[in-house]
Amino acid sequence: MVETLEDVGEFGLIRRIHALLKKEGAAQPPDLTVGIGDDAAAFKPRPGYEILVTCDSVVEGRHYLPRFMTPRDIGRRSMVVNISDIGAMGGRPRYALVSLGLKGETPVGDVEAIYRGFLDELNPFGATIIGGNLTASGNGAFIDITLVGEAREDKVLRRSGAGPGDIILVTGYPGVSNAGLQLLLHGFEQPDHPLVKAYIRPSHRAGVGAAVAEHTRATAMIDTSDGFLGDLGHLCEESNVGAELLQEAFPVSKEMQDAAALLDKDPYEFFLGASDDYELIITCRTEHVAAVRSAVAATYAGPVTQVGRMTEQAGGICLLLADGSEQSLSAKGWDHFG
Amino acid sequence: MVETLEDVGEFGLIRRIHALLKKEGAAQPPDLTVGIGDDAAAFKPRPGYEILVTCDSVVEGRHYLPRFMTPRDIGRRSMVVNISDIGAMGGRPRYALVSLGLKGETPVGDVEAIYRGFLDELNPFGATIIGGNLTASGNGAFIDITLVGEAREDKVLRRSGAGPGDIILVTGYPGVSNAGLQLLLHGFEQPDHPLVKAYIRPSHRAGVGAAVAEHTRATAMIDTSDGFLGDLGHLCEESNVGAELLQEAFPVSKEMQDAAALLDKDPYEFFLGASDDYELIITCRTEHVAAVRSAVAATYAGPVTQVGRMTEQAGGICLLLADGSEQSLSAKGWDHFG
Repeated sequence: MVETLEDVGEFGLIRRIHALLKKEGAAQPPDLTVGIGDDAAAFKPRPGYEILVTCDSVVEGRHYLPRFMTPRDIGRRSMVVNISDIGAMGGRPRYALVSLGLKGETPVGDVEAIYRGFLDELNPFGATIIGGNLTASGNGAFIDITLVGEAREDKVLRRSGAGPGDIILVTGYPGVSNAGLQLLLHGFEQPDHPLVKAYIRPSHRAGVGAAVAEHTRATAMIDTSDGFLGDLGHLCEESNVGAELLQEAFPVSKEMQDAAALLDKDPYEFFLGASDDYELIITCRTEHVAAVRSAVAATYAGPVTQVGRMTEQAGGICLLLADGSEQSLSAKGWDHFG
Repeated sequence: MVETLEDVGEFGLIRRIHALLKKEGAAQPPDLTVGIGDDAAAFKPRPGYEILVTCDSVVEGRHYLPRFMTPRDIGRRSMVVNISDIGAMGGRPRYALVSLGLKGETPVGDVEAIYRGFLDELNPFGATIIGGNLTASGNGAFIDITLVGEAREDKVLRRSGAGPGDIILVTGYPGVSNAGLQLLLHGFEQPDHPLVKAYIRPSHRAGVGAAVAEHTRATAMIDTSDGFLGDLGHLCEESNVGAELLQEAFPVSKEMQDAAALLDKDPYEFFLGASDDYELIITCRTEHVAAVRSAVAATYAGPVTQVGRMTEQAGGICLLLADGSEQSLSAKGWDHFG
């Protein structure tokens, strides 16, 4: 018989998770003064560093489809979303707090697998889980993670620093995750297909983000969690500038082109639209492009592509097509209530 | 027509919340370097302070009954739960991150009222909301708050420091909230009844916690969010001691006695059992009781009561009744999956 949360109870589950973290998690760093097991966790901040904090939740059925993803993949994805946010500011993750809303009939093994997914992503940074909360959730499950990171003082890279004329660079192939999801939804359930893998096990570029913030003079950075266009829109809004994009330059991989043909879609829409990718949009002045490229190359084997430049026209995003014509784009990202 | 989240969309709602926080929230402190509106928030830690972090969620139907509580009360309660955790370590709240899972048909005004509830509790500390997350939740709503606080270095008060012979003190009247809830559930819907008010608008003792941690030699502290007995059990477990309680000494107010009589319950069970109160259990050596009492009295007008002492018998909690007999208690707190 499968052991469920109702069988072990909240405090039984907490003990099981403790044991798992102790055995499979990174060692507690010396600056952590109080870990799991008290009203709050406590740590001594490192001199010369700023503290970064972000939180993000994933909700069953809305952010992930349990029939395509294992509990471990769900855990990984939830942590990647948060690591990406810390990385997009130029920081490195240190401490996570995990709030889970779960149904009583959930197998204990599934919860342990979710935690293993968290550790898959945290362990490479030596980051640890220092607290959290478990609650029964009547209907859909939710995972809400708070991630605390650190970045060198005054090296935090914001969304708001881009200026007119700055070059727009983007890592990887934004849109691959949505292309993979569309394949799954249209019945192409091939777990080893690179696009399907991109959806099921997305990657973050936190190493890239930290390198760019520490070693270059990039002006702004944001991750693509709301889709390339949505997040470029946020960056434009916060920087009070516009953007001009060159469609021909968009990084569209061979697999994305094939998937677009198969699904009768425009591959550029995969690139621009909502997609669960965690790539980085980076802006910098022309003379700093080479330095940004080499900071990226030092930490990531994939492409970094110049896709356009910032303009003075606040909020306006304009697309230059191959035939020389122009198109005005509406920077609508993924809207949870839209 | 009532304006709903579906009408304004996620980003519309975010703009509304920004405006509300700007107008009604505390001013952003100078050590906050990045507030709302980026991938993560950033702040410079104050020298000489440790950082505290806690997170807690409330789920509709499980932690609050919308028919008894206004959205503003729900906001207040969710923040009180977290402030209490920071206070129970001896800290003061500084920064909150709020993750909301909401139904699309929720009126925008209700969300604004929830935020006003947060501010009711944060503003007295000059604490601010620095980030968060909004997501659509198909069924029940949830509010998950991460609260970042600070405490003077090496003045953090843990659960694990109690020793045999230490005196057990408790603030206020644990159990009033459950007594109020029972009145409501039994049809005594009098919103001005002190017990009902204690349920609908619970208070935290964070000011007391900070004073005790900074100015006394208390050995351990915990809040009573799992009920007095449940949390005393946690404290015993973490400190590896037992406890002996004097039933006669339990703080049971006149209202609790009346409610117990009306509901045909034992008033001591209100005191011991699960209840949404956020009082503090404080332990200290006999010679420090007077100092703890005066630290409490300096910050809180209610009672602080000596209810027993710690014993060597790890984990055992023993109740001494008025007739001289003894009873062994099982320290079961509120179990979400029990």
